[in-house]
Amino acid sequence: MGALGTETRRFSDVRRHVEGISQKMLTQTLRALERDGLVSRTVYPEVPVRVEYALTAAGLTLREPLRALELWSIEHLDDIEASNGNYDKV
Amino acid sequence: MGALGTETRRFSDVRRHVEGISQKMLTQTLRALERDGLVSRTVYPEVPVRVEYALTAAGLTLREPLRALELWSIEHLDDIEASNGNYDKV
Repeated sequence: MGALGTETRRFSDVRRHVEGISQKMLTQTLRALERDGLVSRTVYPEVPVRVEYALTAAGLTLREPLRALELWSIEHLDDIEASNGNYDKV
Repeated sequence: MGALGTETRRFSDVRRHVEGISQKMLTQTLRALERDGLVSRTVYPEVPVRVEYALTAAGLTLREPLRALELWSIEHLDDIEASNGNYDKV
């Protein structure tokens, strides 16, 4: 969702924005988001076929809560890693 | 996290607040949250032993972004289910 943002992107563009994801996992994820009505998939019958993905209106409304969670994660990552290290030592 | 809220709860109390979760899954989840420093686990050496769980200060800060996500889910559940039904028909 974050990789799409407010842009329309082709599959390879999306993949470039999601670090380390496999082609299979990204395909499954995009399909699940499309099924939920959060991502639109537009096929342009060119040669070669062009397929573009974008967030729908519903998908766009999920950006803010997801972003809040992402910011929380970034802010607390060091503490969580320290806590993990401490826990595993015991 | 939502099941703990601002309360201190015993295992069975937490479980009552998480619909349909197995004992094993709840144990694993609480342990992972404890490892991350988001939940504290206090053991009172009574007979029988009493164990209480509570959100830590860090855990409490996660409540708001999680709650925003929960509200989004509640708000969009019907649309998502309708979209799923529509997608599966095609």
